[in-house]
Amino acid sequence: MPIISPRTFRGTRDFLPSELLGRRRILQTIEDAYRRYGFQPLETPAIEYLEILTGKSEENDKLIYEIKRARGGEEDSAESAIALRYDLTVPLARVVAQYAELPRPFKRYQIQPVWRADRPQPRQGRFREFVQCDADIVGTESLLADAEIIALTYEVLRDLGFEKFRIRLSSRKLLFGIIDTIPQASIDGIDTPAIREALFVVPFARALDKFDKIGWDGVADELVSKGIYYQDAFAVLKSLEAALTGADFETAGKVFDDGVRGERGRRGVCEIREVFLTALNLGVPKVSIKLDPFLARGLDYYTGPIFETVLPDHPHIGSLSGGGRYDGLISTFSKQQVPATGTTIGLDRIQTALTQLGEFKTVPSTTQVLIARFDDAGVSENLLMAAELRRAGICVEVWYDEDRMKKQFAYADAQGIPIVLICGSEEREKRTVSLKTMRTSQQQEVSREALVATIDSLLRGL
Amino acid sequence: MPIISPRTFRGTRDFLPSELLGRRRILQTIEDAYRRYGFQPLETPAIEYLEILTGKSEENDKLIYEIKRARGGEEDSAESAIALRYDLTVPLARVVAQYAELPRPFKRYQIQPVWRADRPQPRQGRFREFVQCDADIVGTESLLADAEIIALTYEVLRDLGFEKFRIRLSSRKLLFGIIDTIPQASIDGIDTPAIREALFVVPFARALDKFDKIGWDGVADELVSKGIYYQDAFAVLKSLEAALTGADFETAGKVFDDGVRGERGRRGVCEIREVFLTALNLGVPKVSIKLDPFLARGLDYYTGPIFETVLPDHPHIGSLSGGGRYDGLISTFSKQQVPATGTTIGLDRIQTALTQLGEFKTVPSTTQVLIARFDDAGVSENLLMAAELRRAGICVEVWYDEDRMKKQFAYADAQGIPIVLICGSEEREKRTVSLKTMRTSQQQEVSREALVATIDSLLRGL
Repeated sequence: MPIISPRTFRGTRDFLPSELLGRRRILQTIEDAYRRYGFQPLETPAIEYLEILTGKSEENDKLIYEIKRARGGEEDSAESAIALRYDLTVPLARVVAQYAELPRPFKRYQIQPVWRADRPQPRQGRFREFVQCDADIVGTESLLADAEIIALTYEVLRDLGFEKFRIRLSSRKLLFGIIDTIPQASIDGIDTPAIREALFVVPFARALDKFDKIGWDGVADELVSKGIYYQDAFAVLKSLEAALTGADFETAGKVFDDGVRGERGRRGVCEIREVFLTALNLGVPKVSIKLDPFLARGLDYYTGPIFETVLPDHPHIGSLSGGGRYDGLISTFSKQQVPATGTTIGLDRIQTALTQLGEFKTVPSTTQVLIARFDDAGVSENLLMAAELRRAGICVEVWYDEDRMKKQFAYADAQGIPIVLICGSEEREKRTVSLKTMRTSQQQEVSREALVATIDSLLRGL
Repeated sequence: MPIISPRTFRGTRDFLPSELLGRRRILQTIEDAYRRYGFQPLETPAIEYLEILTGKSEENDKLIYEIKRARGGEEDSAESAIALRYDLTVPLARVVAQYAELPRPFKRYQIQPVWRADRPQPRQGRFREFVQCDADIVGTESLLADAEIIALTYEVLRDLGFEKFRIRLSSRKLLFGIIDTIPQASIDGIDTPAIREALFVVPFARALDKFDKIGWDGVADELVSKGIYYQDAFAVLKSLEAALTGADFETAGKVFDDGVRGERGRRGVCEIREVFLTALNLGVPKVSIKLDPFLARGLDYYTGPIFETVLPDHPHIGSLSGGGRYDGLISTFSKQQVPATGTTIGLDRIQTALTQLGEFKTVPSTTQVLIARFDDAGVSENLLMAAELRRAGICVEVWYDEDRMKKQFAYADAQGIPIVLICGSEEREKRTVSLKTMRTSQQQEVSREALVATIDSLLRGL
């Protein structure tokens, strides 16, 4: 048979042990913080009916991997189309609509992979299969919830060792407000609020989202191409930025008094203020939050506060987290209006960032003792010792083959296994074993009875 | 917009928090055992190139979910076909061939979902998306490795609380040996070993695999339909069973002396003996292993010892674990011959079994303290207390809305949150808080300064 060339699908990765063990430490830090805030875990299937996934975000619809119904006999070809989830928020919305027994508030976290048919950009931490770590609070309109999401994000990044990061905070209502201030004449006679929103808010948000990359001119070009007369909107944005940078909420609120329909914009300013002050109350340092009217967030379903985390010194790494309030999404699946807010923390972005900062730590192995194979006659005793050490909770490998000691030590060395146990015929006769501590190369002989206790204390001393 | 009915794809499941927390305890037990045996974690992508997956097992090929290349612009339609993995062994074989830097032996565990377009049978623990927990040892032909896999399986099931389980043990070489004993005339003139194997071993193994379900007659019918003259094979099987049940390896070996080509069968008996005795040496009780020539394992790629775990009192629940040695699989992807052995432990089968035994424990929540919202004026103090408790590592929820205390207590009760903290205007004036222990309904007032210490000691007493 011809050999099939071994390779991974472009945009996906294998995680070999040493990298994965480092990655798990990041995950543990995230999960610990989620639990301190009272979030409970949820898992949903990778495969969803296509109709569940589509129609929430025009951009994401293009990125959905659809699955062929299998050729085998067990599948009903009349069954509905299926696909891989592209995020964890849509499955959460489905779950909330599907199970009446869930508590309110429902605070859930979910750490699972998602798939997007995107162009992979590994240096930016963009892949086709990547892990999202979501925390969401469902069932309350209270802005305490949004503030907790921000405090949680702060604690995760702090615990991961990031020092210079900013949580950008704004409100989708600010964007609605800015659209509202655009003079009626400038939007070609269209003038119901719903049409304004559909036609302008999302394109406006998307254009604004690219501000960091394409600058004023780029955003302006994009708005012109959508038929949005942007000059007034820009003026509003600039005065907002000045006011919010100084946390001058009064001036920011007044910006909207000049517009004919300033109401929603003013509500956005109030929202930002409340979330900001509550987050400070929860212990987030002022310097970690940036009130930023240029924050837009591309997703269509946000309705209230929005937030994302960036590393100001590493702009080429995309946002480490992003989220916001989405009070309308769940009603896609239910007659109920259920408010919700939450964030995604991107494990892969975080790993990429830590790696580029030189702070990502790999761990070669978790094995604590290698029992060397000195001679064939010792195999049976080696197995008994392995069983004894494992009963004491110690992680042990037994060498399987008749190899030279040099090879066995080289393995322990490369794997970072701290202790090698040798038990030759001499030791067996004396009922002793030799323990070599790899880091110091020191070897000691201990009685067979003291084996577990000695190894325990050696491991504690490491 | 019409409401999309919220539902999960048939054969897949959501895991809501209380079930998932119980499920995580199972996973933790499995992972702890894997680590004690010195296995290191690996993760591979859900999506593989189709050519990586196909051709390893005729049965599994039919169950592969292929993925459509996305409609979006970023995908190159000329790229190769892609699909979801159906197990974790084929990705492991690819990984071993792909990365020269992996150690030898490479002891890896992998706990990830797999997908099969199968008919779902939830009561039997069969789903289309399910989690496999694999442990494999790559790079040694030593049967110590196979014995360790059996000992590991024993410890996992023991630690999970199973009492009556049997690890069935046989060798694929025994099957080769049985085929070898079929008289030449009975197989229609075909007589090279390779053709014998291709034509008979796999169908024979598959038919035998169904023995528990379809009995002697069923197996016989299936063999006849494949043109296999089975009478001699059955006679061999029956004498083998008698010998192996009494662990009478000498008689078992002699069975093959009667066959013209008894060599491989005898080697199978030797293998079984060595693995069996080594597993006992590693601490596995004799009663937990069943030497069983009727064990076949359906997969095509096994070459040596094979094993699976069953619950004799619950035959309708499929095997909880299954595995074996597969010395040829990795050469699909590499010119190197790399020996390997390992097992899969089925998380979903185990959860199904524990549930049916009444031993599966759900956990409603991990939150330890709910800070009630007694009045609006207390919100700010509540947040400060939440931050303080979280800094001490305690899992805390803050109530978000202006609700009656009754509703807040009902939430704590339903979620199994052990302590509710109340801090009204009176308490704030006195710099105290009231702590209610939900289980006993006892309430105590403690000074604000003693908050963390008191809650710590209450939690320790639970």
